[in-house]
Amino acid sequence: MALLLRTSSSRGPWWRGEFARELPDLDFRVHPEVGDPKDIEYALVWDPPAGLLASLPNLKAIFSLGAGVDHLFKDPQLPRHVPIVRLVDERLTGQMVEYAMLYALYFHRAIPTYEAQQKTKTWKESPLKLISERRVGVMGIGEIGGAAARALKGIGFDVAGWSRSPKVIDGIKTYAGADGLGPFLARTDILVCILPLTAETTDILNAKLFAAMPQGSYLINIGRGRQLVEQDLVAALDSGHIAGAALDVFRTEPLPPESPLWAHPKIVVTPHIAAMTDPRSSVLQVVANIKRIRAGQAPINQIDSKRGY
Amino acid sequence: MALLLRTSSSRGPWWRGEFARELPDLDFRVHPEVGDPKDIEYALVWDPPAGLLASLPNLKAIFSLGAGVDHLFKDPQLPRHVPIVRLVDERLTGQMVEYAMLYALYFHRAIPTYEAQQKTKTWKESPLKLISERRVGVMGIGEIGGAAARALKGIGFDVAGWSRSPKVIDGIKTYAGADGLGPFLARTDILVCILPLTAETTDILNAKLFAAMPQGSYLINIGRGRQLVEQDLVAALDSGHIAGAALDVFRTEPLPPESPLWAHPKIVVTPHIAAMTDPRSSVLQVVANIKRIRAGQAPINQIDSKRGY
Repeated sequence: MALLLRTSSSRGPWWRGEFARELPDLDFRVHPEVGDPKDIEYALVWDPPAGLLASLPNLKAIFSLGAGVDHLFKDPQLPRHVPIVRLVDERLTGQMVEYAMLYALYFHRAIPTYEAQQKTKTWKESPLKLISERRVGVMGIGEIGGAAARALKGIGFDVAGWSRSPKVIDGIKTYAGADGLGPFLARTDILVCILPLTAETTDILNAKLFAAMPQGSYLINIGRGRQLVEQDLVAALDSGHIAGAALDVFRTEPLPPESPLWAHPKIVVTPHIAAMTDPRSSVLQVVANIKRIRAGQAPINQIDSKRGY
Repeated sequence: MALLLRTSSSRGPWWRGEFARELPDLDFRVHPEVGDPKDIEYALVWDPPAGLLASLPNLKAIFSLGAGVDHLFKDPQLPRHVPIVRLVDERLTGQMVEYAMLYALYFHRAIPTYEAQQKTKTWKESPLKLISERRVGVMGIGEIGGAAARALKGIGFDVAGWSRSPKVIDGIKTYAGADGLGPFLARTDILVCILPLTAETTDILNAKLFAAMPQGSYLINIGRGRQLVEQDLVAALDSGHIAGAALDVFRTEPLPPESPLWAHPKIVVTPHIAAMTDPRSSVLQVVANIKRIRAGQAPINQIDSKRGY
């Protein structure tokens, strides 16, 4: 009975210490020291090499070391019959919501204009819209996106949400599916993307989507980098159709120095910091789920392997 | 029976049109065309020349063309027995609250660091505090400051408030008076100043106040420029004791090109845009108050001439 940790970070020893305290009877192994693959019942992983999980015949659960699970679905041999569990950290949700509020307010209040004016010592008012007339659209209204939509509504924005399948959120107009996307985009002054990465959402932020948004609208991407066609965004910014963007995720991370996004005057780049997984909260969630599985219960925050999120 | 408008803006003709529609029987005059001073019952003013109001013997009310009334109290001959009324525009309050939330989140999430990093194409996480552990202190918790304190609390900050006289706001720890100032500042990571300008609050944001705040704290000033001793702030920023400041108001406005604040790397300058009075809402408030006075009622939003706010 063993757990296998696979992480690209240097936190291996820390995780071992936490598990030794919380579940002292659990044999804790750190990849690539797998030992006998038949021993491994639990895998706690970020970006595992293709085939690793399929090589573990007695797996009872795969724990993602983050809220997203797209790093798992990159593996064509992913054993989809094994329950896949993601981290749902309320604090992580709260941090994503903070970032969405911060940059929605930032664009709403024309801060990029004032920052540029400060450099030239220019004292000039920009036109000001009422927050209740500023239409924010949240793409992806699950656990995190739903919280963001409610918070943005709470501070006064006119909020709508879009998701693949229909969802209902109190006080928020929702749109769904391919048919709902056009009307949703047409009423969106500030688009906040918090979608999970799936085959359907890859490249979804593209020239066609930007063209369906109003002239002078804004993008905030805190979903995944592969959802954004970067050259399409640059073209839409250069034409003036999109007025500005705040990007926290990129197709390649860290963002390479040669990327044109770094120096674009209408783009804010942050280094994937919208939310940072709290390691202590992660431990408690994984431990609680291992206890549930041992007691014959289903783990909480299990994802749907068919949908991929 | 006449109203005298005195404004430094070019909106005179617009005001005349609005009043002609709302109160057609009211003789509307625009300074300096006063006519017979004995005719003037109402003065609607911003920054009136000293002695102007004292020269109007039949004044029934003085309406400030803004939420602040400090521009009136500069006049040593201000007739204090006449009711002084300020504008209270809910939208203006909302805009001030937006600005406070925006820059509190901006400093909370280390955005100045990320903006500097973007210039050098640096991909590096800054440490992240929980919002519930970030202590915001609001100085001035009246109409606007109280709303800001509640909103900042609503999005998750640990909020306290300070005012001259004791006040109670649900869920917010409040401090008052000279004795309360030290303990209030000692627990303030982000200070939001929304005080009215009075003799007591002039120069209140000074070296002594900054020294009483924790190392690495932040200032947001949306009160009045004369509350801030600008050279004390620059010294506190240069020493590193204060980590950053967002300033919307200044001792001289527009901020002169020679001011060191413009180019200071730790200062955000915005051109007095935290809130912009909505002219249409202002008309309706003044008209409603004139109707109340005519009906023998006290005007609403009258200030206390003894306190000066």
